[in-house]
Amino acid sequence: MNQADRISGVLSPVVTPFKADLSPDPERFVRQCRWLLSQNVGLAVFGTNSEANSLSVDEKIELLDRLVAAGLDPARMMPGTGACALTDTVQLTAHAVKAGCGGVLMLPPFYYKGVSDDGLFRSFAEVIERVADPRLRVYVYHIPPVSQVPITLALIERLLKAYGGTVAGVKDSSGDWGNTKAMLDAFAASGFDVFAGSETFLLANMRGGGKGCISATANVHGGPIARLFASWTGADADAQQTRLDEIRGVFQKFPMIPALKAAIAHYGGDPAWATVRPPLVDLDREPAAALVADLDRRGFTMPGLKA
Amino acid sequence: MNQADRISGVLSPVVTPFKADLSPDPERFVRQCRWLLSQNVGLAVFGTNSEANSLSVDEKIELLDRLVAAGLDPARMMPGTGACALTDTVQLTAHAVKAGCGGVLMLPPFYYKGVSDDGLFRSFAEVIERVADPRLRVYVYHIPPVSQVPITLALIERLLKAYGGTVAGVKDSSGDWGNTKAMLDAFAASGFDVFAGSETFLLANMRGGGKGCISATANVHGGPIARLFASWTGADADAQQTRLDEIRGVFQKFPMIPALKAAIAHYGGDPAWATVRPPLVDLDREPAAALVADLDRRGFTMPGLKA
Repeated sequence: MNQADRISGVLSPVVTPFKADLSPDPERFVRQCRWLLSQNVGLAVFGTNSEANSLSVDEKIELLDRLVAAGLDPARMMPGTGACALTDTVQLTAHAVKAGCGGVLMLPPFYYKGVSDDGLFRSFAEVIERVADPRLRVYVYHIPPVSQVPITLALIERLLKAYGGTVAGVKDSSGDWGNTKAMLDAFAASGFDVFAGSETFLLANMRGGGKGCISATANVHGGPIARLFASWTGADADAQQTRLDEIRGVFQKFPMIPALKAAIAHYGGDPAWATVRPPLVDLDREPAAALVADLDRRGFTMPGLKA
Repeated sequence: MNQADRISGVLSPVVTPFKADLSPDPERFVRQCRWLLSQNVGLAVFGTNSEANSLSVDEKIELLDRLVAAGLDPARMMPGTGACALTDTVQLTAHAVKAGCGGVLMLPPFYYKGVSDDGLFRSFAEVIERVADPRLRVYVYHIPPVSQVPITLALIERLLKAYGGTVAGVKDSSGDWGNTKAMLDAFAASGFDVFAGSETFLLANMRGGGKGCISATANVHGGPIARLFASWTGADADAQQTRLDEIRGVFQKFPMIPALKAAIAHYGGDPAWATVRPPLVDLDREPAAALVADLDRRGFTMPGLKA
């Protein structure tokens, strides 16, 4: 796999549909992923917004297999595979590589806090050595507000020295543009692909040499976000960015994951989508109505979602 | 199971031995657990200090089965079973109950931060309803410095109202005696068993109506800690507490888990014990020597550990 084959653009940490008994719903999942691809949005399944850490490894493997069996292109997939347990991360990562996934998005082990870069390096190194597949492309996942375990620049430098090519990039969900810029400045020129953690920084990231974004709101607003990615050098790029920020701002007034699902339930005409797994809670009827009213007022749509 | 059958006393979050390839070592694990029981220390296997969240559910099930197969009394076991994924927690909890474990120590799902008490209540409730076994005894695990997801008094009150008897107690690893005391004052009289998260508060906890402690250092100093539990009303209780604090203080100068393993490796004459799984790192030779020198100077021993 050379540089040209690598994943770029806009990806969605695809929200995971659940049945009434809280088991994952593979049919709805496949339909949603197919719709996202139709919007030029790649599939960062099993991300934070996918409630992936509320799923067992077996549940994730089953869902991934269903996507591939349904004919969706695994080269467009960057499943999240990082777990607390080394053995879980190895199992899911190896499975994703064998399935042909274009890359994997890897959280550091996140139970123990205050761990050293030595320990994190050893974690990623063990996974890479055990998976032992030249097709593996690892995107490290920096999301300190949730994981509480950061991926430092020093750690990335060390990983690139040992596993350049395999360690292919980062998703920066720090919410701190200064950090994203530091990653771009330090590593983008050497073929390390920086994805912003939301479309908020998509334009800035592209101007700085980044490769796109992986964003919660790509679940619902992916088409317009992908359009900015495709035309970021155009005259209306800043205007596009402003519109993306406006819509994201609406979702940010609510708990993000339940709000994304409530929007899909509403605009897809499929109330079952609203279900989340504990420890999250579904959006109540009143805030869900407020969300939709606010979105409607701003002319928000989800074209092609409704069956 | 009536109140008299419930677990009390001193338990150890048993450190998990690994082979050179980082796989769990069941033979060493069984030997260590048998030694701990000989010191009157119960088996809170799969705790924070067990690197339990660095193990897959299958690895934990295999280790638990090996303990039971070796004839160790499951009534003395309180395995940690709380994971991020509802399905993982249910699987391991159900397995522990079927194996006859006296209780389970349950972390809340800990990936998502800032979750509501509603969501946490729903998490515990789903596990209890799915395991659906009257033998289940849940000890909720409050360890905000690591999990970052607290168990509030309001949540405990709600759980007791809905699942009194099944929700049997708490391990309070907040490190905040005021919080432990608040739990004792609010719930101890109604048959909710409060375990201090370390022997630092063992005497205070017993005086306040608690049931014992579950402590990292019970891995190495369990006999003397259990002796204080057995004689806390005696004249020398404060002197015993002072000695326990002295030894714990030595371990606290080092990263706790690698230090516990280094001590077992040294005093057990078994260097393989020193291995930890990433993201932790083994204690280097120099701090390990400093630890042992400090312990020796204070007359520390681990009687009966050496084969």
